[in-house]
Amino acid sequence: MTTTPATSTPAAQLARFAAELKYSDIPETVVQKTEDLWVDWFGSAVAGHNARPVASITRFALAMGPQQGPSEVIGPQGATSSPYLAAMANAAASHVAEQDDVHNGSVFHPAAVVFPPAVAVAQALGKSGKDLLTACVAGYEVGIRVGEFLGRSHYKIFHTTGTAGTLASAAAVGHLLGLNAAQMLHAFGSAGTQSAGLWEFLRTAADSKQLHTAHAAGAGLMAAYLARDGFTGAADIFCGPQGMAAGMSTDSDPARLIDGLGTRWATAETSFKWHASCRHTHPAADALLQVMREHRLKVPDIAGVVTHVHQAAIDVLGPVVDPSTVHQSKFSMGTVLALAARHGFAGLTEFDNDYRAQDTMALRDKVSMVLDTEVDTAYPRRWIGKVTVTTTGGRTLHGRVDEPKGDPGNTLSREELTDKALRLGAFCKEVPAVQMQNAVHKLWKVRDWTRVETLLQAV
Amino acid sequence: MTTTPATSTPAAQLARFAAELKYSDIPETVVQKTEDLWVDWFGSAVAGHNARPVASITRFALAMGPQQGPSEVIGPQGATSSPYLAAMANAAASHVAEQDDVHNGSVFHPAAVVFPPAVAVAQALGKSGKDLLTACVAGYEVGIRVGEFLGRSHYKIFHTTGTAGTLASAAAVGHLLGLNAAQMLHAFGSAGTQSAGLWEFLRTAADSKQLHTAHAAGAGLMAAYLARDGFTGAADIFCGPQGMAAGMSTDSDPARLIDGLGTRWATAETSFKWHASCRHTHPAADALLQVMREHRLKVPDIAGVVTHVHQAAIDVLGPVVDPSTVHQSKFSMGTVLALAARHGFAGLTEFDNDYRAQDTMALRDKVSMVLDTEVDTAYPRRWIGKVTVTTTGGRTLHGRVDEPKGDPGNTLSREELTDKALRLGAFCKEVPAVQMQNAVHKLWKVRDWTRVETLLQAV
Repeated sequence: MTTTPATSTPAAQLARFAAELKYSDIPETVVQKTEDLWVDWFGSAVAGHNARPVASITRFALAMGPQQGPSEVIGPQGATSSPYLAAMANAAASHVAEQDDVHNGSVFHPAAVVFPPAVAVAQALGKSGKDLLTACVAGYEVGIRVGEFLGRSHYKIFHTTGTAGTLASAAAVGHLLGLNAAQMLHAFGSAGTQSAGLWEFLRTAADSKQLHTAHAAGAGLMAAYLARDGFTGAADIFCGPQGMAAGMSTDSDPARLIDGLGTRWATAETSFKWHASCRHTHPAADALLQVMREHRLKVPDIAGVVTHVHQAAIDVLGPVVDPSTVHQSKFSMGTVLALAARHGFAGLTEFDNDYRAQDTMALRDKVSMVLDTEVDTAYPRRWIGKVTVTTTGGRTLHGRVDEPKGDPGNTLSREELTDKALRLGAFCKEVPAVQMQNAVHKLWKVRDWTRVETLLQAV
Repeated sequence: MTTTPATSTPAAQLARFAAELKYSDIPETVVQKTEDLWVDWFGSAVAGHNARPVASITRFALAMGPQQGPSEVIGPQGATSSPYLAAMANAAASHVAEQDDVHNGSVFHPAAVVFPPAVAVAQALGKSGKDLLTACVAGYEVGIRVGEFLGRSHYKIFHTTGTAGTLASAAAVGHLLGLNAAQMLHAFGSAGTQSAGLWEFLRTAADSKQLHTAHAAGAGLMAAYLARDGFTGAADIFCGPQGMAAGMSTDSDPARLIDGLGTRWATAETSFKWHASCRHTHPAADALLQVMREHRLKVPDIAGVVTHVHQAAIDVLGPVVDPSTVHQSKFSMGTVLALAARHGFAGLTEFDNDYRAQDTMALRDKVSMVLDTEVDTAYPRRWIGKVTVTTTGGRTLHGRVDEPKGDPGNTLSREELTDKALRLGAFCKEVPAVQMQNAVHKLWKVRDWTRVETLLQAV
C-alpha cells in the first residue's frame, strides 16, 4: 500500500491549519468581520426556529436527546440539550429564512453550519468568546475552501452547504475540542465520508434544505468528537481515488484547498444577504432596482425583464416556475424581482405577505432568465447583476450592478446588521423585542466573553 | 414546474410497497429466512460491540443521548438510550466483525442497517415480533433494490451499505411508525439526501466502515420520524435530475427499484457469511479449499495462487497489500486465503491470532488477483470462485465454486447459524455463554413475541 506522506497533502495542510489556528493569528479586520457574521447569523437562527420544518427537526432532537443539557436550543422556550442535538436544531433554524450569509466563490453558506455546532460545544465546554471566534474562523476557512475545491460540477447536483458543511462543522468543533493536526485530519475523514445533500428537493419545494444544515452540523460535530476519542478517518478524503472529489465532482481543484492558507482570509470574503431569498436572485434584483432608480420607473412601467445570469442560477432557479410555498418563492427569480420592484426590497415580511399577491404574480410572469457569458465567466468569484427592462412605453433599458448589496465591496454597516438582526427577531413573533435587543447588544461583545453562555436566554 | 405524477414513479411504487407490506403478504419461506438473518445478525452485533471503533461511537451516542431510554444498546453493560442513538451504536457494532450478511446482486449488507434501527424503534413502541419481522423485510427489500439500482459504478467509489443503507433504515423504521405511502416517499427523500459513505478509508485502514452503518441507521431513522411529523422530502430522490443517481452513479437502472416487487423476495436471496472477511474474498477462499480437498494439498505444497476475480474485488481489495490491523487484513485476499488454507476456515479467532503470523504472511504473499471475464460478467448476480494453484511439485491445478458457502444454494442450516452466533458471542469475552445461549434460543421465537423486549439482557 502506498500513500503520499500525510503531511504533504492539501488535506493534511488544511487540517494542520484548522487545528493550530490561534486568535492572535487572525487580523483584527477579520475578527471584526467574524463578529459581523456572528450577529448576522444570530438573527437568522432566531427568525427560523419556529418554521414548520425546523420545528420538526427540533422536536426530533429534543425527543431523542436528554431532557436537559449544556447547550441552548435557540428559541423562546429556553430548551437545552446535548451539543449534538442542539447543534442540529440550531443549524436547521439558521438556513430557513434565506437571510444567512454566503461566500460567493464557493457558493457556500458558512454561518448555518459553523456557528450552531461551535456555540453548542463552546457552551458545553465553557469556552471563551475568543475561543469561539477562533474556532468559527477555522470552520469558515475550511468549509469555504472545500466548497471551492469541489467546484461548479459538484454544485450542479449537490447542495454545497450540506456537503462541505460537514467539514466546516468538524473544523470548528475540532478546534474547540483541541484536536491536534493528526486528529483533525481524522475528523476530516469522518466528516467527509458523511458528506451529503442533493438539490432534488427543490423540484417539489420539499423541506430538505433544513435537514442538510442539521445533518452537516451533526455529522461534523460527531466526526470531531470521535477523532478526539481515537477514531480514525481516511487520510485524504478530498483527493483520494475513492474520496469526495472522485465521487462527487468532475472539476475539483486540490490547489483550492490550501489557497493562501493563513494569508488569504476567506472568512472576510463572505457576503451578507440583503434580500430574503436565494442568493442567485440578488444580483438581478439589485440590477433591476438600479435601473428603476436611474430611470425613475414604476412597476406599471415594466413590460418585461430579462435577467442575464450564470448557469447555476438557471440550474437552481429554473425549476421554480409557479412557487407554491413561501420558501419555494425565494427560489423564483420572478417573485423576488417582483417583490423588490414593488417594495424596494424583498424581505421576510414582503415574502410572507405578498409572494402570491396578484400584482406580484403578474410581474413575476414577465421575468425570464438567459445565460450570459460575461456573468457566467465571472461566476462564482464575482456575482454580476445584469437586466434588460422593456417598458410599456417601448423603451429598452439596461441595469447593472457589479457587487450586489451585502458583498464585501458593498457591505452592510454594523447599524444595518443590527437592524437586520432585530428585524429577523421581530419576524419571529414569540421573542420580545427587548429580549432580542439585549441579546444582540450582548453578542456584539463576544470577544470579551470569558465563557460562552446562552445567547437568547438571559443568564 | 412539471413533475411526473408521484404514483407512477419507481420511487412512489417502492414507497407504497414499503408502507403497505403486511405480514400475511410474506411467504412462509421468506419469513423463515428473515428469522435466520435475524439470529445471524445478533451474533455479529454482540461480537462487535466492544471493538475499539464501535466503543467510540457508543460512547458518543451515550454521551449525547439520554441517560436511559426505551432502546437497548446491545452489550453486557445493559445500557439503554433513545431509539436514534441506540440504533447508531448497534449498527456500528453489527458490521465490524465482517460476519454480517450480504446480498450478492446489490453488494449490500442489509442486516447491519436494518435490524438495529428496527429493533430500537420496535422496543420504544412496544411492537410485536411479527411487526418487527415485517418492517425488516420492508427494509431488506428496499435497501437491496436501491443498491441494485445504484449499480456497479456507484460501488466503485461508494460503500453501498452506507448509501443505500439510509433508505433501508428509513423503510424499516417508517413501516414500524405506520407511515402511509405518501409519508414513506417523503422519508425516502429525506433519507436519500443524507446518503453517504466513501471507500477512501480502506486505503489506510481507517475506522469509517462502522461510522457508515451508524450514519445510515441514524439518518434513515430520523428521515422516517420526520416524515411522520409532516416533514417533506424530494418526490424522486432516486431518478430525479439532481437525485442520487445523477450525483452518485453512471450506470443506474430505475427498473431495478421495483423489480418483482411483491413476487421476487430479495430478502431470501441474501447470503450468510462463513469466513469473517470481506465478501469479495469468499469465492476464491472456497475455491482454494475445494482444490486443496480434491487434490489433498497441504499448505507447504502451495507455491502460488492466482485468484480469478471480478473488478470490484480488485477495487476494494487491491489497495490492501500489507495489512496493519486485523480489520484491514479482512480485506487482504492473500491473508484470507492463507488463513483458510491453514485452518480450513477464516474465522474471527483465526484472524485475531494469526493474521500476521509468519506462515500466514508467507502464504499471503504468494497470492495474486487477476481480472476474469467469466467471473466479472456473472458478478454481482453470481459470485463465482476460481483459483489456479501452482504446487511446489510443479503441478498447475484449478479450483472452482459456483456458490460460496452461505449463498442461498449452499446455505447454512439453523444449527450452523446457531453455532455461528454462539461462536460470535464467545468471541466477545464479556458475555457469558449461557446468556448468549438463552438470547439466541429466545431470538429464534421472534415471530411469537407479543412485544419486542431487550435481546441480550433478560427481561
